[in-house]
Amino acid sequence: MTLTTGIEPLTAAQMAGLSPRDVRRAIRDGRWRGFTNLVAPGFVQGNLVIVPAAFADDFEDYCHANAQALPLLARSQPGDPFLPALGDDLDIRTDVGGYMVFRDGELAATPDAVADEWRDDLVSFVLGCSFSFEQMLVRHGVRLRHLDEGSVSAMYLTGLDTVPAGPFGGKLVVSMRALTPPDAITAAIVSDRFPQFHGRPVWIGEPAGIGIADLAQSYGGHGLTALRPDELPVFWACGATAQIAVREAGLPFCITHYKAHMVVTDVPIPTGTHHEP
Amino acid sequence: MTLTTGIEPLTAAQMAGLSPRDVRRAIRDGRWRGFTNLVAPGFVQGNLVIVPAAFADDFEDYCHANAQALPLLARSQPGDPFLPALGDDLDIRTDVGGYMVFRDGELAATPDAVADEWRDDLVSFVLGCSFSFEQMLVRHGVRLRHLDEGSVSAMYLTGLDTVPAGPFGGKLVVSMRALTPPDAITAAIVSDRFPQFHGRPVWIGEPAGIGIADLAQSYGGHGLTALRPDELPVFWACGATAQIAVREAGLPFCITHYKAHMVVTDVPIPTGTHHEP
Repeated sequence: MTLTTGIEPLTAAQMAGLSPRDVRRAIRDGRWRGFTNLVAPGFVQGNLVIVPAAFADDFEDYCHANAQALPLLARSQPGDPFLPALGDDLDIRTDVGGYMVFRDGELAATPDAVADEWRDDLVSFVLGCSFSFEQMLVRHGVRLRHLDEGSVSAMYLTGLDTVPAGPFGGKLVVSMRALTPPDAITAAIVSDRFPQFHGRPVWIGEPAGIGIADLAQSYGGHGLTALRPDELPVFWACGATAQIAVREAGLPFCITHYKAHMVVTDVPIPTGTHHEP
Repeated sequence: MTLTTGIEPLTAAQMAGLSPRDVRRAIRDGRWRGFTNLVAPGFVQGNLVIVPAAFADDFEDYCHANAQALPLLARSQPGDPFLPALGDDLDIRTDVGGYMVFRDGELAATPDAVADEWRDDLVSFVLGCSFSFEQMLVRHGVRLRHLDEGSVSAMYLTGLDTVPAGPFGGKLVVSMRALTPPDAITAAIVSDRFPQFHGRPVWIGEPAGIGIADLAQSYGGHGLTALRPDELPVFWACGATAQIAVREAGLPFCITHYKAHMVVTDVPIPTGTHHEP
């Protein structure tokens, strides 16, 4: 299906059939404000971090030093709101379903667009996201119960330190999926083939081992947090780590995506660099 | 080092430096009766099953139907005790450190050699063994505590049924390694690259999920069975599954290796079919 002109909100079922370009257009036109985990299947999505140019090189260094959490997919030119490598019409000011604007490290606003906030010195970074590898897990037969239940994966702030760079540092954020043991094994093997989407898990089993006291208390307050008796929690490094870092760096100004509203790109998800079982 | 002539028993340290050919010679000469998990590093080892020719095709079918437990490395000609594909001097009657001889499904003897038992209709099968992938795990930084403690991995009889073929069937036997969560993740990913040595794990975590009531009660009574609080039990399909099958089939006659005394071959362990991280 293609996007017809109109102003009515689109349903999740309608969204699922749209191309990435039409997804971005629907978001830009205000016709979709939902999470993006089930839209544009087969195409890469990313975390968004926008910082003033004065901090851009340090932030890139921070990404490289913590590549499992922050796999860098694209960096814009200063002041340029377009990222043609990810989609030739992609306007980073309007095409993400939700934004967080931080001033001096404090959350100042959560607008639907940041065109009014745009400045000539802003540099956008797009970082790999687990929504991309989740599709590969499903394709390999892994049941992601949070999807069945209309949810997204829960995130947690761990006790693990990232490698600092310039003003950036802080604790690692992880995403968690509740999996049966055979699915946990498959998920580790399949996700390892996609380093650009966080790669292999960082932890499996006992959450206290990485400083998570209570699975019921997720970072951001969303996602599936209750395990069944036959499930293991499996944890992957998460791009939300960047939100902690830019916040704690106390930058005078920065912007990130708002939870589970990712940058939807035209880049196809590769089928894996390794032999498929 | 090379094997000097003599009749003295060899130490584990001496054995560790020997080529596969010299390991086999030391076993043939009665100078080594230990487990083989730390000898001939870098070379494939295998489980041994010898059945009368009348049962050989069914047994091969059983291996193919349960390839994760019973990855077939070589099959001999009937009556031929040599397996040149695995080592041009390899005499299957004398070169394995211990044998079990079964008559009508009952263990009849555990000799050091089976030359006296040899018959013109016997067909030898050599099946991949986890000793081969353990070396790759260590190379990828996984701590195998049972090796540090001078032990071998424990085995367990599960409640999982194998796929039957002819008279062969029965429950799956697994080997278990006690691993920290990051090592469990690495072990799943690395072992998956070696389907000829059992491939990926079949289970991780709660033993009851595959019908193992008590980790302290291992199959064969050997191996490390006590977990530390920071360890997960990780389970792989095990070639000892064949011992259950030939025993339960009640064959008039058959021979297997005796626990942890494997067929030592000249075949180098490949470094993996996939990209090394």
